[in-house]
Amino acid sequence: MSENESYEQSTVSVIGLGQMGTRLAQAFLTAGYTTTVWNRSAAKADALVAQGAVHAASVEAAVATSPLVVVCLPDYTTVSDLLGPVAPRLSGRVLVNLTSGTPEEAASMAAWAAGHGADYLDGAAMSGTRLVGRPEALFVFSGSPEAFASHRPVLASLGNPVHLGADPALAPVYDTALFGMAWGALAGFYHAVALAGSAGVDPAAFAAVATEHMPFVTSLMADHSRQIKNGHFPDDDGTVEVHAAAMEHLVDTSRARGLGTDVPELIGSLLDRAVATGHGSSGIAGVIETITKGERNA
Amino acid sequence: MSENESYEQSTVSVIGLGQMGTRLAQAFLTAGYTTTVWNRSAAKADALVAQGAVHAASVEAAVATSPLVVVCLPDYTTVSDLLGPVAPRLSGRVLVNLTSGTPEEAASMAAWAAGHGADYLDGAAMSGTRLVGRPEALFVFSGSPEAFASHRPVLASLGNPVHLGADPALAPVYDTALFGMAWGALAGFYHAVALAGSAGVDPAAFAAVATEHMPFVTSLMADHSRQIKNGHFPDDDGTVEVHAAAMEHLVDTSRARGLGTDVPELIGSLLDRAVATGHGSSGIAGVIETITKGERNA
Repeated sequence: MSENESYEQSTVSVIGLGQMGTRLAQAFLTAGYTTTVWNRSAAKADALVAQGAVHAASVEAAVATSPLVVVCLPDYTTVSDLLGPVAPRLSGRVLVNLTSGTPEEAASMAAWAAGHGADYLDGAAMSGTRLVGRPEALFVFSGSPEAFASHRPVLASLGNPVHLGADPALAPVYDTALFGMAWGALAGFYHAVALAGSAGVDPAAFAAVATEHMPFVTSLMADHSRQIKNGHFPDDDGTVEVHAAAMEHLVDTSRARGLGTDVPELIGSLLDRAVATGHGSSGIAGVIETITKGERNA
Repeated sequence: MSENESYEQSTVSVIGLGQMGTRLAQAFLTAGYTTTVWNRSAAKADALVAQGAVHAASVEAAVATSPLVVVCLPDYTTVSDLLGPVAPRLSGRVLVNLTSGTPEEAASMAAWAAGHGADYLDGAAMSGTRLVGRPEALFVFSGSPEAFASHRPVLASLGNPVHLGADPALAPVYDTALFGMAWGALAGFYHAVALAGSAGVDPAAFAAVATEHMPFVTSLMADHSRQIKNGHFPDDDGTVEVHAAAMEHLVDTSRARGLGTDVPELIGSLLDRAVATGHGSSGIAGVIETITKGERNA
């Protein structure tokens, strides 16, 4: 697609050119979309203009130019401050907000956009800035299903766009939850690298094997989500009791090698608590009840 | 391969028919290898015999029948008790020990096997029992590289066999480390499911998106292992300080929704400790130094 093909769907505006906003604009340009950019400090647009972007003279011009307006700013207050004065211009457009915030902020901004005749999609970039534009970069969106469906091709230039549902609050909910999940995996990985390292294993050699193992761990997540949904925890992957004993062994081994034991101790405490509340012979996914407290118990 | 093709490499013996041993024997049978089995309580062999296995009359007969002898027993003491009296029969064979144990036990058994003229591979099944025989089932082995190379085709009937190195202690080291890593990911996942669930998100719907995200998290492990190796932590994936603030937000959100906060609090404490020891502006992989304590610092 060249810039001369000026049909409406081929144009997009990006407001906010921080590290992420810049990468978003670059991805749209690379995919061939006419891309209009705006940033409070105008100098940040220069490199993008050199790559073919159109520099809007004002926020209003940026909004007025494209049917799809993507904003990525430090916080929702900044979004409101910038878009508030030009709200009438949003009518008939789709506002895509990739600013980080809370579910409440997303819900409130969706209502504000609707009040000005705009469709709204809240979104979150889950794969950092480096992968933006590559098919494996996960972007989650929530809000208007119609807006997502009609602009999916443009959003797909960013990576792998996934629509979570009509409730605009879902994107920040998933954003926060996936962040915690990723950190659980990383904390477990760092401890494992430290333990293997204490036995002379090279971190990169360990990571190569860890990478072979993670698809299995990921497959457990899918299995366990169904168990959690059904509230029934078969012991196909071992019982809580057996895993608690193995975790105690990991704590002891780590201590004997002079390593911090926080990570296995935390997991051990979840397992021990599950045993103490009568889940010892359950499958390991029963541990979730130590996090939801008594709420899921009948 | 049929049972009538009796060349040496096509036969394997399995000693110990617990849940895992039974699955190992089934996988060898399915792949077409003549499979001899033995178990202390003989009844456990019946189902395998019905599937085509040969039932050895004694441990000695099981060892004497095959060039490759796979044992999977409750502990190393049981292995020693069973194999000790028939040790002379091991000469010239390869002993593959998939019993769970410590690095010290593996090293000691490798030395014992060598003393009786046998090659030794220690091993660990990383993907539970269900996947045994499928190409994604990771099996790690350590010990004699020659034994691994010559018996790799037979071991590949179990899944994805990976040789970690000549030191027999490596398999139990990886086993323990990967177990901790998997649990970090699962603990993070359970917390995330609980958090998303508190916003009305179905566990299976969340897991579907989590599954799209995990390959990215896994790719970070490979990147971070290189950083850890180099002792240099660029902030491409964000700084420790920024992640610490986001983790505090996750703790607050979880608390506000009535969930247990152990998982994000543990990760927050690792991040806070990294900030306190001067790693605030490092990339997040710098957190490993809170686990290895001061050892990696110059």
